[in-house]
Amino acid sequence: MDSHVHTHQKQVVNRLARIEGHTRAVKQMVAEGRDCPEVLLQIAAIRKALDNTAKLILKDHLEHCLVHAVNEGEHEEFMGKLQAALNHYIR
Amino acid sequence: MDSHVHTHQKQVVNRLARIEGHTRAVKQMVAEGRDCPEVLLQIAAIRKALDNTAKLILKDHLEHCLVHAVNEGEHEEFMGKLQAALNHYIR
Repeated sequence: MDSHVHTHQKQVVNRLARIEGHTRAVKQMVAEGRDCPEVLLQIAAIRKALDNTAKLILKDHLEHCLVHAVNEGEHEEFMGKLQAALNHYIR
Repeated sequence: MDSHVHTHQKQVVNRLARIEGHTRAVKQMVAEGRDCPEVLLQIAAIRKALDNTAKLILKDHLEHCLVHAVNEGEHEEFMGKLQAALNHYIR
Protein backbone atom coordinates (compact mmCIF):
# COMPACT_ATOMS: atom_id res chain seq x y z
CA MET A 1 0.00 0.00 0.00
CA ASP A 2 1.38 3.35 -1.03
CA SER A 3 -0.85 6.25 -0.07
CA HIS A 4 1.33 9.25 -1.04
CA VAL A 5 0.00 11.58 -3.73
CA HIS A 6 0.91 11.24 -7.43
CA THR A 7 0.98 14.37 -9.62
CA HIS A 8 -0.95 12.71 -12.45
CA GLN A 9 -3.37 10.65 -10.33
CA LYS A 10 -6.45 12.54 -11.58
CA GLN A 11 -5.25 12.31 -15.19
CA VAL A 12 -4.64 8.56 -14.83
CA VAL A 13 -8.15 8.07 -13.38
CA ASN A 14 -9.63 10.11 -16.26
CA ARG A 15 -7.69 8.14 -18.88
CA LEU A 16 -8.83 4.83 -17.38
CA ALA A 17 -12.43 6.13 -17.38
CA ARG A 18 -12.08 6.91 -21.12
CA ILE A 19 -10.57 3.45 -21.78
CA GLU A 20 -13.49 1.88 -19.89
CA GLY A 21 -16.00 3.83 -22.03
CA HIS A 22 -14.13 3.03 -25.25
CA THR A 23 -14.13 -0.69 -24.36
CA ARG A 24 -17.89 -0.53 -23.69
CA ALA A 25 -18.41 1.10 -27.13
CA VAL A 26 -16.30 -1.57 -28.89
CA LYS A 27 -18.25 -4.31 -27.07
CA GLN A 28 -21.40 -2.73 -28.55
CA MET A 29 -19.81 -2.68 -32.05
CA VAL A 30 -19.09 -6.44 -31.78
CA ALA A 31 -22.63 -7.15 -30.50
CA GLU A 32 -23.96 -5.30 -33.57
CA GLY A 33 -21.81 -7.46 -35.89
CA ARG A 34 -19.59 -4.63 -37.11
CA ASP A 35 -16.77 -5.24 -39.57
CA CYS A 36 -13.75 -7.07 -38.01
CA PRO A 37 -11.01 -4.66 -39.25
CA GLU A 38 -12.97 -1.72 -37.76
CA VAL A 39 -13.14 -3.55 -34.42
CA LEU A 40 -9.41 -4.43 -34.57
CA LEU A 41 -8.56 -0.75 -35.22
CA GLN A 42 -10.52 0.25 -32.12
CA ILE A 43 -8.84 -2.44 -29.98
CA ALA A 44 -5.43 -1.22 -31.20
CA ALA A 45 -6.47 2.33 -30.14
CA ILE A 46 -7.46 1.07 -26.66
CA ARG A 47 -4.12 -0.72 -26.34
CA LYS A 48 -2.27 2.46 -27.32
CA ALA A 49 -4.26 4.42 -24.71
CA LEU A 50 -3.37 1.79 -22.06
CA ASP A 51 0.32 2.08 -22.96
CA ASN A 52 0.19 5.87 -22.63
CA THR A 53 -1.54 5.53 -19.25
CA ALA A 54 1.15 3.07 -18.09
CA LYS A 55 3.82 5.60 -19.14
CA LEU A 56 2.14 8.31 -17.06
CA ILE A 57 1.97 5.99 -14.01
CA LEU A 58 5.64 5.12 -14.51
CA LYS A 59 6.53 8.83 -14.71
CA ASP A 60 4.78 9.50 -11.38
CA HIS A 61 6.39 6.41 -9.93
CA LEU A 62 9.91 7.49 -10.85
CA GLU A 63 9.40 11.16 -9.91
CA HIS A 64 7.68 10.64 -6.56
CA CYS A 65 7.79 7.06 -5.35
CA LEU A 66 11.52 6.66 -5.99
CA VAL A 67 12.33 9.73 -3.88
CA HIS A 68 9.97 8.44 -1.19
CA ALA A 69 11.58 4.95 -1.26
CA VAL A 70 15.11 6.35 -1.05
CA ASN A 71 14.13 8.60 1.87
CA GLU A 72 12.61 5.61 3.67
CA GLY A 73 15.64 3.38 2.88
CA GLU A 74 13.39 1.11 0.76
CA HIS A 75 15.10 1.52 -2.61
CA GLU A 76 15.94 -2.20 -2.96
CA GLU A 77 12.31 -3.23 -2.50
CA PHE A 78 11.35 -0.39 -4.88
CA MET A 79 13.67 -1.64 -7.63
CA GLY A 80 12.55 -5.26 -7.21
CA LYS A 81 8.84 -4.43 -7.52
CA LEU A 82 9.42 -2.04 -10.42
CA GLN A 83 11.47 -4.64 -12.27
CA ALA A 84 8.76 -7.28 -11.77
CA ALA A 85 6.11 -4.88 -13.13
CA LEU A 86 8.23 -3.96 -16.17
CA ASN A 87 8.97 -7.62 -16.88
CA HIS A 88 5.23 -8.22 -17.13
CA TYR A 89 4.70 -5.15 -19.25
CA ILE A 90 7.53 -5.55 -21.76
CA ARG A 91 7.22 -9.00 -23.28
CA MET B 1 -20.82 -2.92 -42.34
CA ASP B 2 -20.56 -6.66 -42.12
CA SER B 3 -23.60 -8.30 -40.56
CA HIS B 4 -22.80 -12.02 -41.01
CA VAL B 5 -22.42 -14.09 -37.87
CA HIS B 6 -19.04 -14.81 -36.24
CA THR B 7 -18.53 -18.08 -34.30
CA HIS B 8 -16.88 -16.34 -31.34
CA GLN B 9 -19.03 -13.20 -31.29
CA LYS B 10 -20.54 -13.98 -27.87
CA GLN B 11 -17.10 -14.87 -26.43
CA VAL B 12 -15.63 -11.61 -27.79
CA VAL B 13 -18.48 -9.60 -26.22
CA ASN B 14 -17.94 -11.41 -22.89
CA ARG B 15 -14.18 -10.80 -22.99
CA LEU B 16 -14.69 -7.10 -23.71
CA ALA B 17 -17.18 -6.94 -20.81
CA ARG B 18 -14.52 -8.44 -18.51
CA ILE B 19 -11.88 -5.98 -19.80
CA GLU B 20 -14.35 -3.12 -19.16
CA GLY B 21 -14.88 -4.33 -15.56
CA HIS B 22 -11.16 -4.88 -15.01
CA THR B 23 -10.42 -1.33 -16.23
CA ARG B 24 -13.07 0.04 -13.85
CA ALA B 25 -11.43 -1.86 -10.95
CA VAL B 26 -7.95 -0.53 -11.85
CA LYS B 27 -9.37 3.02 -12.08
CA GLN B 28 -10.62 2.50 -8.50
CA MET B 29 -7.17 1.24 -7.40
CA VAL B 30 -5.56 4.43 -8.77
CA ALA B 31 -8.21 6.63 -7.12
CA GLU B 32 -7.38 4.89 -3.80
CA GLY B 33 -3.65 5.66 -4.30
CA ARG B 34 -2.56 2.03 -4.60
CA ASP B 35 1.07 1.10 -5.22
CA CYS B 36 2.28 1.90 -8.79
CA PRO B 37 3.82 -1.53 -9.59
CA GLU B 38 0.53 -3.22 -8.58
CA VAL B 39 -1.35 -0.89 -10.95
CA LEU B 40 1.18 -1.52 -13.76
CA LEU B 41 0.75 -5.29 -13.33
CA GLN B 42 -3.03 -4.92 -13.70
CA ILE B 43 -2.65 -2.70 -16.80
CA ALA B 44 -0.31 -5.31 -18.32
CA ALA B 45 -2.99 -7.97 -17.63
CA ILE B 46 -5.65 -5.84 -19.36
CA ARG B 47 -3.36 -5.40 -22.37
CA LYS B 48 -2.78 -9.15 -22.54
CA ALA B 49 -6.57 -9.74 -22.41
CA LEU B 50 -7.04 -7.21 -25.25
CA ASP B 51 -4.42 -9.01 -27.35
CA ASN B 52 -6.15 -12.36 -26.79
CA THR B 53 -9.49 -10.80 -27.77
CA ALA B 54 -7.94 -9.36 -30.94
CA LYS B 55 -6.60 -12.84 -31.80
CA LEU B 56 -10.10 -14.31 -31.42
CA ILE B 57 -11.58 -11.60 -33.68
CA LEU B 58 -8.85 -12.27 -36.22
CA LYS B 59 -9.59 -16.02 -36.10
CA ASP B 60 -13.29 -15.39 -36.84
CA HIS B 61 -12.30 -12.91 -39.53
CA LEU B 62 -10.05 -15.37 -41.33
CA GLU B 63 -12.40 -18.35 -40.92
CA HIS B 64 -15.65 -16.64 -41.90
CA CYS B 65 -15.16 -13.20 -43.40
CA LEU B 66 -12.44 -14.35 -45.84
CA VAL B 67 -14.72 -17.07 -47.25
CA HIS B 68 -17.55 -14.53 -47.48
CA ALA B 69 -15.27 -11.98 -49.22
CA VAL B 70 -14.00 -14.52 -51.76
CA ASN B 71 -17.57 -15.67 -52.51
CA GLU B 72 -18.60 -12.05 -53.08
CA GLY B 73 -15.50 -11.29 -55.20
CA GLU B 74 -14.31 -8.79 -52.57
CA HIS B 75 -11.02 -10.40 -51.58
CA GLU B 76 -8.90 -7.40 -52.65
CA GLU B 77 -10.89 -5.03 -50.43
CA PHE B 78 -10.72 -7.67 -47.67
CA MET B 79 -6.92 -7.89 -47.82
CA GLY B 80 -6.51 -4.10 -47.92
CA LYS B 81 -8.66 -3.53 -44.84
CA LEU B 82 -7.08 -6.43 -42.94
CA GLN B 83 -3.59 -5.16 -43.73
CA ALA B 84 -4.50 -1.65 -42.51
CA ALA B 85 -5.86 -3.09 -39.25
CA LEU B 86 -2.77 -5.26 -38.68
CA ASN B 87 -0.47 -2.33 -39.43
CA HIS B 88 -2.14 -0.42 -36.60
CA TYR B 89 -2.00 -3.40 -34.28
CA ILE B 90 1.58 -4.53 -34.81
CA ARG B 91 3.81 -1.55 -34.21
